Amino acid sequence: MKENNSQDFKPIKGILISSGCLGLYDNTRNDISLISLETDATVCGYFTQNIYRSATVVISENNIKENPPKYIIVNAGNANACTGYEGELDIKKYCQKISELTNIKENLICPLSTGVIGERIDAERFKKIIPLLLDSLSINNYKKFSKSIMTTDTYNKLCSSSFHCKNGEEIIINGVAKGSGMIFPKMATTLGFFFTNLRISKKSLDEICTKYLDESFNSITVDGETSTNDSLLVISSNTSNIEYENLNNEDKIKFQNTLRNSMIYLAKEVVRDGEGASKFITINVQGLKNTQDAKKAAFCIANSNLVKTALFAEDPNWGRVVSALGNSNISYIDCKDLNLKINNLAVFENNSISDQYDEEAVKRSMKDKNIEISLIFSHGKSNATVWTSDLTYNYVKINAEYRS
Amino acid sequence: MKENNSQDFKPIKGILISSGCLGLYDNTRNDISLISLETDATVCGYFTQNIYRSATVVISENNIKENPPKYIIVNAGNANACTGYEGELDIKKYCQKISELTNIKENLICPLSTGVIGERIDAERFKKIIPLLLDSLSINNYKKFSKSIMTTDTYNKLCSSSFHCKNGEEIIINGVAKGSGMIFPKMATTLGFFFTNLRISKKSLDEICTKYLDESFNSITVDGETSTNDSLLVISSNTSNIEYENLNNEDKIKFQNTLRNSMIYLAKEVVRDGEGASKFITINVQGLKNTQDAKKAAFCIANSNLVKTALFAEDPNWGRVVSALGNSNISYIDCKDLNLKINNLAVFENNSISDQYDEEAVKRSMKDKNIEISLIFSHGKSNATVWTSDLTYNYVKINAEYRS
Repeated sequence: MKENNSQDFKPIKGILISSGCLGLYDNTRNDISLISLETDATVCGYFTQNIYRSATVVISENNIKENPPKYIIVNAGNANACTGYEGELDIKKYCQKISELTNIKENLICPLSTGVIGERIDAERFKKIIPLLLDSLSINNYKKFSKSIMTTDTYNKLCSSSFHCKNGEEIIINGVAKGSGMIFPKMATTLGFFFTNLRISKKSLDEICTKYLDESFNSITVDGETSTNDSLLVISSNTSNIEYENLNNEDKIKFQNTLRNSMIYLAKEVVRDGEGASKFITINVQGLKNTQDAKKAAFCIANSNLVKTALFAEDPNWGRVVSALGNSNISYIDCKDLNLKINNLAVFENNSISDQYDEEAVKRSMKDKNIEISLIFSHGKSNATVWTSDLTYNYVKINAEYRS
Repeated sequence: MKENNSQDFKPIKGILISSGCLGLYDNTRNDISLISLETDATVCGYFTQNIYRSATVVISENNIKENPPKYIIVNAGNANACTGYEGELDIKKYCQKISELTNIKENLICPLSTGVIGERIDAERFKKIIPLLLDSLSINNYKKFSKSIMTTDTYNKLCSSSFHCKNGEEIIINGVAKGSGMIFPKMATTLGFFFTNLRISKKSLDEICTKYLDESFNSITVDGETSTNDSLLVISSNTSNIEYENLNNEDKIKFQNTLRNSMIYLAKEVVRDGEGASKFITINVQGLKNTQDAKKAAFCIANSNLVKTALFAEDPNWGRVVSALGNSNISYIDCKDLNLKINNLAVFENNSISDQYDEEAVKRSMKDKNIEISLIFSHGKSNATVWTSDLTYNYVKINAEYRS
């Protein structure tokens, strides 16, 4: 396992984490973590739109709606999805164990899972590890946490930032995420966690997060599949002395930007480590009538297998890009108005191949790991950017190898 | 090139075909065909919904709307899409040539193309071959035609059926289609042609075709991409003595069923020969509130890369099927009501894994080239079936090899 140690984490008072090994992969790595929120935290949760959601997602969403949780328990290796009523009872068993040992009500405990769909967990194993997790809680365990939730991720994903407010107080934002992959090969999911100390109301935090979610985790695709378990939590320990509402404008914007950058950074990390990915691709769509259309158009291209295989081949097969765009069902998009660039080199404009188009030059530019495709229209003023990976032999290999 | 000679074609009076070689592939195969409709034909045309349609599609759709054409000219090797105004002029040049030599107005000539997107054709080469095509028209050239429109198809696709009406008259239905693929590797398209001698009005033929198109060519997917050039024409020479409206009910149904079966047969052939396909997969969705929902749900599964890689691996990874279904956005679909079978073997029912589920038995059954996945609900009475192929190393190879 490649290890990401590039980030030094600043601990956040009131947020404690511990990790342990259930042995769902092997006995050499952790696969479960417990987060304890010791102060009156603010917690916003965002969950998959898949109709078939894991019971963990349903329970956590309901609990967070009512009250900020005191404990969050996250495992990898088993998604506990499509396991019916028995799967729900399994969750109840280990949440009850936490409740018994801590005297915290069950509805203040949020379970989250990622891994195989359709297999029961061994609730006894989960119950057995709870005391150990409760005993080893520490404010310094972000790295352990980021490693414990990996499935087919080839490295752990995390970030930490901070800034000083005008009054001298330090505001911290830590982030942890996992990517989308198969393990045996079994469907895994995206999970993201962001932590801060800035005292903030749920309403304000939710407003900020909703906006940035759209620009980050809702702007990425590896294979266009939304899992049963995707979840993202943003948590404040509320332990700073200053409150968000009382920050001056400059500091408010600093906080917003720091959170935004953390979310975009980890979302991009998920794509960079996408299944079998050999390229990191940015699709820019500019000049449509609204952002939804721009995003829809960008996703049409980003999810096209034909575009993704051409990118894998470093082939400037721009016809596939235009054809994929043509499937977006945005009726006002006019090919005659399209200005298409690959890595900022002219390809298509004024309704035909650009006079400056130099296929060899574009090909050479595509040897880089990062490829940028820009489609510029003048139908309106709205833009969108999405990130995706290419479709490679390794994607097929990772997802076609039988569960061993 | 594997050759499909399994079908004996009955010629249809008034429908003449010739083929020739432009050399768009190499000089050993035909790549252009001309169809001459000598009688007052009925012609229905169905065209791609992609926003960026080849100029050939736009011209043919307009022409067919006004009058049944006298000539249809079809080439492979170049789609003449995204070629702007110059591309339109190129088409005009060779259609004018036909017009000059035959004294038929240009708006009675329909051009269709399939092959590379974004490259200009050499109109002079097209013009030069017209006299040869006009001189070699014959009622017996269906097989030549089916071979001339191939792109990455590994074999030509055709069918021929006939039946006798109560009055003794023989009604013939011939079909020719090509599949979706890449050649250098360049986006190719699906083209379908059906020919009959049954005298029929455009209104009646269109009613029948619209219905069966939904059950055939609009029920297949290889990679979920709609091309710039997809077109399907259904043509009657109107040379039978009896007219559709005067057939008795039994014969009407015979005609409908023969056309339906021909369309479904060729649609399935396109999937069977899908890019890199190693499996032919049938997805049945039963018991939803309307057919659109059933089809949408089936396509969500059929277009899922995760489902397609699992099928390639002969892995009964049913969790991916359920998760893909969960992305269909059909809010009333309830997992608790799902009965999931693979090759008619019980997998998931009553909200959890079936008691009868035998993973090894399901795995064994998946070694067959044909795999059937059935999802049975009791939300309503509407069903849909779609056909698809698996996602293989060869799919990536075919689409990633650089244009040589």
